[in-house]
Amino acid sequence: MKKSEFGFIGDIATMFGALPHHGFEPIGDDCTVLDMGGEALVMTTDMLIEDVHFLRHAIKPEDVGHKSLMVNISDVAAMGAKPVATLLSIALPEGAQGEWSERFMRGYYEASKERGVALVGGDTTASRDKIAINVVAIGRAPMANIKRRKDAKVGDVIAVTGKLGASSKGLVDIMFGDVNTPAAKIHCRAQARTAEGAWLGTRSEVHAMMDVSDGIASDIKHIMELSKVGAEIELDKIPTDYDIRFATTGGEDYELLLTVDSAAFDTIAEELFKATGTTLTKIGTITEGDSLTWLEEGKPRELDLNGFTHF
Amino acid sequence: MKKSEFGFIGDIATMFGALPHHGFEPIGDDCTVLDMGGEALVMTTDMLIEDVHFLRHAIKPEDVGHKSLMVNISDVAAMGAKPVATLLSIALPEGAQGEWSERFMRGYYEASKERGVALVGGDTTASRDKIAINVVAIGRAPMANIKRRKDAKVGDVIAVTGKLGASSKGLVDIMFGDVNTPAAKIHCRAQARTAEGAWLGTRSEVHAMMDVSDGIASDIKHIMELSKVGAEIELDKIPTDYDIRFATTGGEDYELLLTVDSAAFDTIAEELFKATGTTLTKIGTITEGDSLTWLEEGKPRELDLNGFTHF
Repeated sequence: MKKSEFGFIGDIATMFGALPHHGFEPIGDDCTVLDMGGEALVMTTDMLIEDVHFLRHAIKPEDVGHKSLMVNISDVAAMGAKPVATLLSIALPEGAQGEWSERFMRGYYEASKERGVALVGGDTTASRDKIAINVVAIGRAPMANIKRRKDAKVGDVIAVTGKLGASSKGLVDIMFGDVNTPAAKIHCRAQARTAEGAWLGTRSEVHAMMDVSDGIASDIKHIMELSKVGAEIELDKIPTDYDIRFATTGGEDYELLLTVDSAAFDTIAEELFKATGTTLTKIGTITEGDSLTWLEEGKPRELDLNGFTHF
Repeated sequence: MKKSEFGFIGDIATMFGALPHHGFEPIGDDCTVLDMGGEALVMTTDMLIEDVHFLRHAIKPEDVGHKSLMVNISDVAAMGAKPVATLLSIALPEGAQGEWSERFMRGYYEASKERGVALVGGDTTASRDKIAINVVAIGRAPMANIKRRKDAKVGDVIAVTGKLGASSKGLVDIMFGDVNTPAAKIHCRAQARTAEGAWLGTRSEVHAMMDVSDGIASDIKHIMELSKVGAEIELDKIPTDYDIRFATTGGEDYELLLTVDSAAFDTIAEELFKATGTTLTKIGTITEGDSLTWLEEGKPRELDLNGFTHF
């Protein structure tokens, strides 16, 4: 749970902070972390509501199922852990209890099978009119592999896996009726960087890590705030096939955003590519202070859009 | 996840059965169980939907919050484990984003504090019109303490903690406008048997265990089916202050239903009472076969009502 998500009712983290923690780390990362004596168990949860996160008539039920799984295991990957299992709760109005739910489960199963993740529990219930879905993803890793947002260091390279912007470009394509563009297909079939996350977890030169869910312009601020650092990002280095606005402020790319010891960056990038076939691109540097500076051809440039925030 | 809960889309357990399990036990109990090398981690999840599980105008938000926590840690207690933490997802329509959500969180916090359970993660989001809540409860215990529904043995005493029927009688009271009866208060403030569950977990003479959520007439069948046994229940032994129909087919009592080695029953009951102040009452016997027989003054009697099923 990101702390800001409970902003609407004041500081829940403080309210519950006085209760016993039973070995769980404080709130603030993509996942909660439980130290089971050297081995970490990480957990994350996400709720998807019809007409808020998806429109029933505009997206295939298989895609909703596939995405529900992928976005949650992406949070596990962002911790440097390997996703092993999920719990699925689903509330279905009458009109979705037959074919819709079966097709949803097919997509959820396909994604689970692709990533070797078990379904170990859940709940199903009726709802009056809208579909509600809640997924919990569980991951495991040695405690030493766990990456947190608070561990960026001044001088670190800021890097991203893959390319940014396709998912939000795809959403715009879909809104304009172009449902078969490459970007639209990427939007409907997010791919969590599970192999990459687990591999990066094994490297101590990787300091902070998170997944790109709201766009790097918004997401980098979580690392800055928790690590108490600033950042410079070079717009012309951001790997994208689309408009830079999609690549910086569009959401749902589910790439990994990380900071790496600058001396080790080239080696890490090369070895990650060898291990997974995925590129790692330097897009900036962690700085002192607390401000985010965008650079273009080495010169500061204003970027007037912020990453979008759900709710 | 109870297997039947996914009945609506065919046999999901079979569909996912071929995927790697990563140490998780197959579906079928109140919680999923992960063996972390001698120590068990148990997890359960439950979704509550407005107008299906509660009416916003008929129940205090504090009570919804309190109940959301209690019903989930009750499932943890039913495994013989100690609840340690929860994850909370909540979707709020505009009209519930202010006072309702704050009062909900107050009830959730009170219940968490009462039972010493941490809040370690969650998600908040908007919804169009109805409130949706999903809670995940996490518990820990030595693997040897874990109780399952499949372990009842022929000749075992069938027993329940506390008294049955108050919650469903309370619901009827509330429906008739009597919101201040003792039963109505019990309905609004379910008390999970956490100390009792953890204590019973330590006793090897306790074989099968679950919590009473749908009424014993329905719940005992899960133990019978998974343990491949029959059962005789003596109606005149069931501890209740209300009509026997509430005590057998009413739901939401959240007492523990268990089977105990008959030679050890008296000692277990006495020691449980000493440890927790909670009574344990013998209500029947596990038999061979697969049928459920109700007895009154030692003679078979038909009971024409079944426990209610959600959805």
